Amino acid sequence: MSPSSPSTARILLDRFAAWHRLTPPERADVETALAGLHPGAEHDPERAAELLARVWWSFLVEPGDGVAGALIAEAGAVAALLAVLAALPTPDALPDMTPAASIRGTLPGVPTPDATRALARWRPRFGDRGLVGALRSAASLHLRVLLPGDDAWPRRVADLGEHGPVCLWTLGRAELLDRPRVGALVGSRAATPYGLQVTADIAEAWCRQGFTVLSGGAYGVDRQAHRTALAVGGDTVAVLAGGLDRLYPAGNEPLLREIAERGCLVAEQPPGTAPTRWRFLQRNRLIASLAAVVVVTEAGHRSGALNTARHAAQLGRPIGAVPGSVVSGSSAGANRIIRDGIAQLVATGDEALGMLALQPELEPSPVAGLRAELVRLHDALHPRQPAPTAALAARAGLAETTVSAGLGELELLGLAVRTGDGRWRRG
Amino acid sequence: MSPSSPSTARILLDRFAAWHRLTPPERADVETALAGLHPGAEHDPERAAELLARVWWSFLVEPGDGVAGALIAEAGAVAALLAVLAALPTPDALPDMTPAASIRGTLPGVPTPDATRALARWRPRFGDRGLVGALRSAASLHLRVLLPGDDAWPRRVADLGEHGPVCLWTLGRAELLDRPRVGALVGSRAATPYGLQVTADIAEAWCRQGFTVLSGGAYGVDRQAHRTALAVGGDTVAVLAGGLDRLYPAGNEPLLREIAERGCLVAEQPPGTAPTRWRFLQRNRLIASLAAVVVVTEAGHRSGALNTARHAAQLGRPIGAVPGSVVSGSSAGANRIIRDGIAQLVATGDEALGMLALQPELEPSPVAGLRAELVRLHDALHPRQPAPTAALAARAGLAETTVSAGLGELELLGLAVRTGDGRWRRG
Repeated sequence: MSPSSPSTARILLDRFAAWHRLTPPERADVETALAGLHPGAEHDPERAAELLARVWWSFLVEPGDGVAGALIAEAGAVAALLAVLAALPTPDALPDMTPAASIRGTLPGVPTPDATRALARWRPRFGDRGLVGALRSAASLHLRVLLPGDDAWPRRVADLGEHGPVCLWTLGRAELLDRPRVGALVGSRAATPYGLQVTADIAEAWCRQGFTVLSGGAYGVDRQAHRTALAVGGDTVAVLAGGLDRLYPAGNEPLLREIAERGCLVAEQPPGTAPTRWRFLQRNRLIASLAAVVVVTEAGHRSGALNTARHAAQLGRPIGAVPGSVVSGSSAGANRIIRDGIAQLVATGDEALGMLALQPELEPSPVAGLRAELVRLHDALHPRQPAPTAALAARAGLAETTVSAGLGELELLGLAVRTGDGRWRRG
Repeated sequence: MSPSSPSTARILLDRFAAWHRLTPPERADVETALAGLHPGAEHDPERAAELLARVWWSFLVEPGDGVAGALIAEAGAVAALLAVLAALPTPDALPDMTPAASIRGTLPGVPTPDATRALARWRPRFGDRGLVGALRSAASLHLRVLLPGDDAWPRRVADLGEHGPVCLWTLGRAELLDRPRVGALVGSRAATPYGLQVTADIAEAWCRQGFTVLSGGAYGVDRQAHRTALAVGGDTVAVLAGGLDRLYPAGNEPLLREIAERGCLVAEQPPGTAPTRWRFLQRNRLIASLAAVVVVTEAGHRSGALNTARHAAQLGRPIGAVPGSVVSGSSAGANRIIRDGIAQLVATGDEALGMLALQPELEPSPVAGLRAELVRLHDALHPRQPAPTAALAARAGLAETTVSAGLGELELLGLAVRTGDGRWRRG
């Protein structure tokens, strides 16, 4: 039986109903709720099965669960879930069984120890009746679920590989997520007036250029980024660490409601999920993957924004940071990632805008095939800010004579342009 | 006749006396003054000739005169000066001649147009009687002249090539100049309390580690650097843009006197020379060349400290800069050179100390012969601050898998060390 057969959705719903001991009215409620979560699935049985499978998965796993991700990538969300269900005893057998005895199987293609640990990790959430209430709550709140393959699905999260989200719970304009220009502005919750000012400056500059301003909906820098975007009529997205039925932190509830109305709220976890430390860290990875560029506007030594920057570094995202006083702790983290070469120093909104030019090219690189020193020299050239030969030599780590000769070659190839005052920029 | 013949010094002194129309008592004064400028030359006729030649040259040329530098490098200071004297008419013929007619010759090895321009440039200073007074003033102030080859001659100025100083006028402990640990601290004259604080922090940290703190004797950052060094009992050198007979700026006179007593004052230009804009710029090049490392603690967009940083970049010196608020102009220049990759971000005195590790190695490089990606990886490792694999990958621009494998190779070669927490530093 192919997973796309019309009966797959029904089979999965039957299993769901059995595991959650749904009464017929509850089952009808769940079906209605699911239809509301993803109206496109209503008349597409394959999509309906995919929706239920991924929603169910999102209740079962913590964000970033690599075994689930690998299994889903290999078999598809529906078949992967059926394999998991097959690896567990029937729901009726459960109440009297110890957790260890309640697992009887392995998973296709997953090494047995990993499968055993994964099943043990997911098992406690199977049949949780809270899920029924959460689905009803999602329906009443008009949440939507984005699935891979949906038009609005943000393709950038594919960079997370098997640690990517199984689906995204959204409220508002989900179409903001897959734009080329999505910039994350992150930083300390305890932002100083300085941090708030530079955050507002960059958020405003980004909005003027049609960027979606992405942040975490927290106090301080996050809040300032969202508020500024709303104030200037720009687009903003808040990625939350818990379910969208609880707008956390409470003090930001009015702001988050406004984002839901005019921008978009996103969560990886379903309704009913409390924000935990782990989920905040995973939320940071999601912010990094959703963004085309990440800027840390103010961050102390232990700020969570540095965690976002590290995730962004792992994903190859261009990262900027705004420097600040070295004698106050509020900028210590931002200064550190600049010093360590993880982030580029960003002083103005326009510089933050310019960072998108650093994004990995989707087209074949123009420098493919050039010898190493020309590639390094090309790297050192900025698309808009021309630099003198000496600075390019310092940046590229090449002798100035090499740089002068190399610039001539790059100029012939159309990859370097000399400005009137004898400086050079990228061609 | 070899330039080392005992009569060379006398021949040169005869020419000097003729050009400056010295009376016999004046000639005796000049001889006494010269002996006091470099006591080591008293019983060494060759050294005495070298001394007079370079002192005379330092009166004739502006700092950085490349024709003089090339000629001296080629022929030696004495023969070069004799060649210039031979290219001019006799002093007796001068008073009635126009400047153009007062040049009749060329210079050995110098293209004729360059020679003509150079002679025309130097000619106006030949026979200037003010020089006699300046030498008397130098003697009464107990100035000393350092010549290339002297024990205390700072070998780092050789990096200036033909644009290097012909000699150095000093007051105080000239032996501070040729130490391995000479750090320049430079910045705005109009320093803010922030700039003053970070300057003091770094100066103190450097002094604790036996650094000589080098600066320009100006207000603001310079003054703070010198004062802090003196306050903590450290060594400090001020490089002035004019002659050491006039301690400029006047408001720093007490400080500069104290530096002369406990540290060292240095000038490239002889007594009687006023500080001019050009000489300030050339002074910056001298600071950059004298320093093993240069740190800009606070600089606005147009600060002269950026000129020093550019000179340092051309000389391949490690350059640091202290970041600051992006919303005040006082740190705009420092932030810019960090952003442009000219300077490394420095947040603490210890980080500024660590920069010496970036100096070009005098010994054969341990990475010689390694393939490019290992060299890049080794470059990315810091000698004292361990970093995680991801950060190293970002720094080196290599895939993390490549970095992991490469670290293993470098570890086997003793070039990388893994710390307890799984991070890596240079071996």
